[in-house]
Amino acid sequence: MSTASLPDLLAVPADDLLVLTASLVAVPSVSRDEAELADRVERRLDERAPGLALARVGNTVVARTELGRNRRIVLGGHLDTVPANGNEVPQLDGDVLHGLGSADMKGGLAVLLRLAEEISAGNEPRFDCTLAFYEGEEIADEFNGLRHVFAEQPALLAGDFAILLEPTGGHIEAGCQGTLHLRAHFDGERAHSARPWKGTNAIHAAADVLARLAAHDSDTVLVDGLPYRESLQVVRIDGGVANNVVPDTCTIVVNRRFAPQHSIDEARTQVEALLEDADRIEVVDGSPAAPPNLGHPLVAEFVDVLGLPVEPKLGWTDVARFASRSVPAVNFGPGDPDVAHTADEQVTRASVEQCYAALARFLGVDA
Amino acid sequence: MSTASLPDLLAVPADDLLVLTASLVAVPSVSRDEAELADRVERRLDERAPGLALARVGNTVVARTELGRNRRIVLGGHLDTVPANGNEVPQLDGDVLHGLGSADMKGGLAVLLRLAEEISAGNEPRFDCTLAFYEGEEIADEFNGLRHVFAEQPALLAGDFAILLEPTGGHIEAGCQGTLHLRAHFDGERAHSARPWKGTNAIHAAADVLARLAAHDSDTVLVDGLPYRESLQVVRIDGGVANNVVPDTCTIVVNRRFAPQHSIDEARTQVEALLEDADRIEVVDGSPAAPPNLGHPLVAEFVDVLGLPVEPKLGWTDVARFASRSVPAVNFGPGDPDVAHTADEQVTRASVEQCYAALARFLGVDA
Repeated sequence: MSTASLPDLLAVPADDLLVLTASLVAVPSVSRDEAELADRVERRLDERAPGLALARVGNTVVARTELGRNRRIVLGGHLDTVPANGNEVPQLDGDVLHGLGSADMKGGLAVLLRLAEEISAGNEPRFDCTLAFYEGEEIADEFNGLRHVFAEQPALLAGDFAILLEPTGGHIEAGCQGTLHLRAHFDGERAHSARPWKGTNAIHAAADVLARLAAHDSDTVLVDGLPYRESLQVVRIDGGVANNVVPDTCTIVVNRRFAPQHSIDEARTQVEALLEDADRIEVVDGSPAAPPNLGHPLVAEFVDVLGLPVEPKLGWTDVARFASRSVPAVNFGPGDPDVAHTADEQVTRASVEQCYAALARFLGVDA
Repeated sequence: MSTASLPDLLAVPADDLLVLTASLVAVPSVSRDEAELADRVERRLDERAPGLALARVGNTVVARTELGRNRRIVLGGHLDTVPANGNEVPQLDGDVLHGLGSADMKGGLAVLLRLAEEISAGNEPRFDCTLAFYEGEEIADEFNGLRHVFAEQPALLAGDFAILLEPTGGHIEAGCQGTLHLRAHFDGERAHSARPWKGTNAIHAAADVLARLAAHDSDTVLVDGLPYRESLQVVRIDGGVANNVVPDTCTIVVNRRFAPQHSIDEARTQVEALLEDADRIEVVDGSPAAPPNLGHPLVAEFVDVLGLPVEPKLGWTDVARFASRSVPAVNFGPGDPDVAHTADEQVTRASVEQCYAALARFLGVDA
C-alpha cells in the first residue's frame, strides 16, 4: 500500500493494526501539538466504541468500561512523539512501518483502539478497563497528561493494575529505576591567571570529585530476581570566566539512576557523599523508582498468561507514577525500544498483532 | 582642586603631573574608543613639543627626536583602558588621583608628555627618544597599536632599548613570562543516561587529566637571578548535551605561563604531555616570553642609574614584543599594579613625579 492511499484514521478498520498504526503516524503529534490527534482519537472512539464512557482532560482522552467487574485494569499510551527527524511521513514497506512514533508509541495506540472497539462491540473483558490516550510524555513532567488527570480527575485513572504500552520488544518490563539530578557548585576566587596563587581555581577544586564520580562503580541490585543496574553520570560541567582569569565557579550536574529498593532521599544521600567537597549541592529534579511487584496477584497473573520474559526497566517511565499511588504497573508494548527516537524508527505487523493478542488474552477479549 | 575645575588636557601645564594625569583620565578611552584621546595627545604634542617628529598610525601617535645620537630609547604607553567600573570621572583627593586608567596607565602617559615637552624645549637627552602613545593594549592582540606600527611602519619603533610605562609600583620589571592557551577536546559517545554503558562519557574521560592538571606543581625558574614563578591553570571547562544524555564532548582550556628560558614550542610540549589522554589538542593563542636581559649594557645602565629593585614580570606585556625583535625592554611606570583594573584604581603625585625624575635622569633630561 502506498503512503498516498493510506486511509484516514477515522476510516481504517481496526483489525488491520499496521495500517491503523500508519494512519496514527500520519497525524503529526509532536509534544505540545497533540490536539489534532487527540481530537481524532476521541472522535473515532465516540463513533466506533460507543459502549465506553469518554472523558477528556486537555489533550488526554480516557475511555472506560462500566461493567461492574471487581477489578479494573488501566492501559495507557501517550499520543505525543519526539520531534521529527526526516521521518514524519509514514512508509509502509510490506509488513514493516517506518516513521516517527511508529514504535514509540503509535503501535501501542492502535492496539488500544482495537481493544476499545472489540470491547464496545460486546467482546467483554473479565476486568473493567480504562484506556488512556495521553499527551506530553516525551517532555518535562509538568506537561504529562497522566499527571494532569491524576491532579484534576483522579477517579478517571483509578485501577488495580496498569499496563503502559511503551515499546518493549516482546518483553514485559517490570518496575523502573528512579532518577535524580543533583547540581554541585564549586567556589573559588578570581585572580589573574599569571598570578594564580592569589586566587583559588574552582575548576581545580572540582577535579577530585570529578575523578571520584568517574571512577564510581555502581551496583547491580536484584529486586524480585530482576537485575537493576544502577548508574551515576556527570551529564554537564561548566566553569570559567575568561582565558586570563582563574575561575571562581564550576558547576556539575550528576544523574543518578537508582534501583527500586531505594527512595529518592536514599539516592540523594549516596550521591551527596560522593560530592562531599562541593560548596553547595541542590536537587534539580527527582522521580522515584517503582518496584517490579512481581508478587502482586495481577502482575503474577499477567506474567503467567503472557508467558514472556520479564526484564527490569532501567529508565524512568510512567509506571512509577502508578506505583507511587500503590498501583502495580508494567510496560508492555509493540516495537523495539532501541529504534525509538531514531530516524529509522519502525514497527512490524507481527509486533503489533502479538501485543494485541497477548493483551486480549489477559483481559479475556478473545477475537 | 575639584573635578569641575580640571583644566583641559590641552591647557594643563606639564609640570603638574598629577593634574595632567587627571586631565588624561577625563578623556574616556576604553579600548576601541581611543580616537578622541589620540587626537588630543597628537594636538598637544604638535603645539607643545614642536621639536619632535610626529606620526600617526590608526589611533597610535609616535613622537621622535632626530638628534643624531648613536642609540635610541623607545618609551611606550597605551592610551586605552579597561571598561569603566563606576570610576570614569577622575577624583583628585589631595595628592591622590582616583579614576579609570589613573594607574594603568595615564600616569605613565603624563610622564611621556612631560618628557616630550622638556626635550622639545631644548633639554636634550643623551639618547634619541621615541615616544609611542598606542591603542588597543587591553584587548586581543589583533588590536594592539604597537603590533600595527611594527607591521606597517616598523622604522617608527626602531630602537636599542624599550621602556614601557606599565604600573610597576616603584620597581623595574624585567622580561616577562610567556603565555600559552591550549584547548583540549575529549570525545565520547552519546547514550541515554539510564543506560550509560551503551556510550562513553566524555566528561568522565576528562577527569583524570583534570586531576593531573589540578595537582601539577609548577616550577619557579631563576633567569638572571630573577625568580619566574610558572603556572598552569584550567581556565575553562564545558561539557554536556542534556540532563538525560551521556555527553559525547568535553572541552577544557588550559593557560600555561612559562619562564623566559622556554620557547612557546617547549611550553606546548610540556602541557601536551599533561594532556596526553585528550582526543585533540589545539593552540588557542600563545605569546613568547621575554628574557630579562639584565646583562645588556643599556638594561644594566638603566638599573644602575635608577637604583631601584628589579623584579620578574609574571604576566605578559608588550616587553615581549620588543624582545622578539631583539630589543631589550623593561616595564617601569607609576602606580600600583594591584589596583589596575579595579574600581578603586588610583595613582599618587609622588609616584608620577618619581617616575618622571628617574626616566629624566636616565635619559639625561635634567629639569
